Amino acid sequence: MPNDLISTGMKAIEQMLLVSVDSDIDVLQSASQHILTSGGKRIRPQMALLAYLAAGGEDLEQVVPLAAAVEMVHTATLVHDDINDHSLTRRGKATIHSIWGRTFALLTGDYLFTKVYELMAPYGPAFNIIMAGACSRLVEGETLQAAAAKSGSIDRDIYKQIISLKTASLFETAARMGALLATTDEALVNNLATYAYNLGLTFQIVDDILDVIGDAEALGKPVGLDLLQGRGVLAVGKHQQVGAGDGASVATAVAEPDAANGVADPIAEMMLRLRESGAIEIARLQAVETADRARAALKDVPRSPARSELAQLVDLVLERQS
Amino acid sequence: MPNDLISTGMKAIEQMLLVSVDSDIDVLQSASQHILTSGGKRIRPQMALLAYLAAGGEDLEQVVPLAAAVEMVHTATLVHDDINDHSLTRRGKATIHSIWGRTFALLTGDYLFTKVYELMAPYGPAFNIIMAGACSRLVEGETLQAAAAKSGSIDRDIYKQIISLKTASLFETAARMGALLATTDEALVNNLATYAYNLGLTFQIVDDILDVIGDAEALGKPVGLDLLQGRGVLAVGKHQQVGAGDGASVATAVAEPDAANGVADPIAEMMLRLRESGAIEIARLQAVETADRARAALKDVPRSPARSELAQLVDLVLERQS
Repeated sequence: MPNDLISTGMKAIEQMLLVSVDSDIDVLQSASQHILTSGGKRIRPQMALLAYLAAGGEDLEQVVPLAAAVEMVHTATLVHDDINDHSLTRRGKATIHSIWGRTFALLTGDYLFTKVYELMAPYGPAFNIIMAGACSRLVEGETLQAAAAKSGSIDRDIYKQIISLKTASLFETAARMGALLATTDEALVNNLATYAYNLGLTFQIVDDILDVIGDAEALGKPVGLDLLQGRGVLAVGKHQQVGAGDGASVATAVAEPDAANGVADPIAEMMLRLRESGAIEIARLQAVETADRARAALKDVPRSPARSELAQLVDLVLERQS
Repeated sequence: MPNDLISTGMKAIEQMLLVSVDSDIDVLQSASQHILTSGGKRIRPQMALLAYLAAGGEDLEQVVPLAAAVEMVHTATLVHDDINDHSLTRRGKATIHSIWGRTFALLTGDYLFTKVYELMAPYGPAFNIIMAGACSRLVEGETLQAAAAKSGSIDRDIYKQIISLKTASLFETAARMGALLATTDEALVNNLATYAYNLGLTFQIVDDILDVIGDAEALGKPVGLDLLQGRGVLAVGKHQQVGAGDGASVATAVAEPDAANGVADPIAEMMLRLRESGAIEIARLQAVETADRARAALKDVPRSPARSELAQLVDLVLERQS
């Protein structure tokens, strides 16, 4: 029963993630388990597992380590992101650096990355070349984002480049590798990869929208953080003059709260202006468009419970509130 | 001419390191090139190249990416170490985080690690499993060191474990992989791996001694840094009461310079006491012992210019002043 394969597979991935970070060095094991059990959505390993099943794969043992590796890449970057962003909470739990300090957080991120490498090693060159490229692009995306935020020069094109590199690329890679494990049908592999790439774009745009209009409690993290750091959804709209894409204007706002209208919190003020500017609606339209592309790519994928699940994921990603 | 193979190989490794970090993201390329051209000793890629040649390998193209990957692992960890140690100079040049800031330094280290992965991907499972394990142990060694320094509980056993994990393991892995590329003779592979493991231990002990008695200018970095951070050579001696293995006592010393003997610099004071304690001599004896083991492992390796080079390296590592 294929539906059982999906839930059994996801449980096996969860198990493999935790087993992978067994270490004699207590702090590495504790910190790794802390972040791995903090309730991630596991959407990236789902890409790998569902693409594998949708492409005809039937042996969970074949795909589980690969799917776990994909989630491990994401987890490693979260740990390092939280250091760079000075975030104190993530998914409602304290971040690693806020508990264990920056040195151990940095090392834990490195450690998780070595676990990606260990999980992937048995798969051979074709898969490792794809995965290594995705890892490299992910770091390039994070760096481009940090550079754009710093220079205040983020615009629509750079925003698209950032979300493609830092998010969509790993989604695509997960599905491509999962499909390649199951089939030699290139068109099928490419359809699943295109689906996942566009789902990744949708996911990130929605994430950035939620950073502005979401509920901090439901999200388990502070909202407005991306805004504070001069990046995020604002750049997808054309009304950039209203946004915080410009780090300098954020600094100014912080230094000089707008006394005229009585709003003392510059982030709240920016979020308000952003909502009023129409940028959210533009971003929303873009998310709908990339979601449509994801659905279109599924058309030629043979019907299966896994394909149904992939189709449902588009709606879930588009409509999620946290 | 095999000697030409050595120097041609080392040049090709250098070239490959620089080419690997080509990126559209300027800061990643600049920062990576900055650290890669800062005059590293390249002893780890030498392990891979010389073991390959000593085991009968003749095709440089086969071993160069692997040797470059080994140096890339080391380089990635240097970038992250410098962040954690707050080091401002490395090999006489400014550190990445001191030029580009912590965020970009952290990302550059991550980026270099993805390049390890890219360089290794084509080699297939056997090699990648070995390399992934070495990377994981390296991070464990760094973490154990940081944890021991923090708790002040570093002793001789933990010191040995640290230098085995963080240094000797990568030396061993480099030689093992290089040899495995050239031969199926297990005994030969193991001899070269044992040689490199012991050379790695020797290298690290000497490094730690130089941290105490070396010349800052020749080393291109401040001396006493390891001491300040409660780790290093002191732990190899039995006179731990004199050392700075205890972070708390370092803090005390910093807060209350020893006014009685007029020494205001607590690090200089600790270094002086350490030199007088005999710990350096004990560490020196241990380095001589591990160097002997490295030489012994070479005995059954067939004579070749590469083997001669490996033998010479033992003396160079043992006698180096910087």
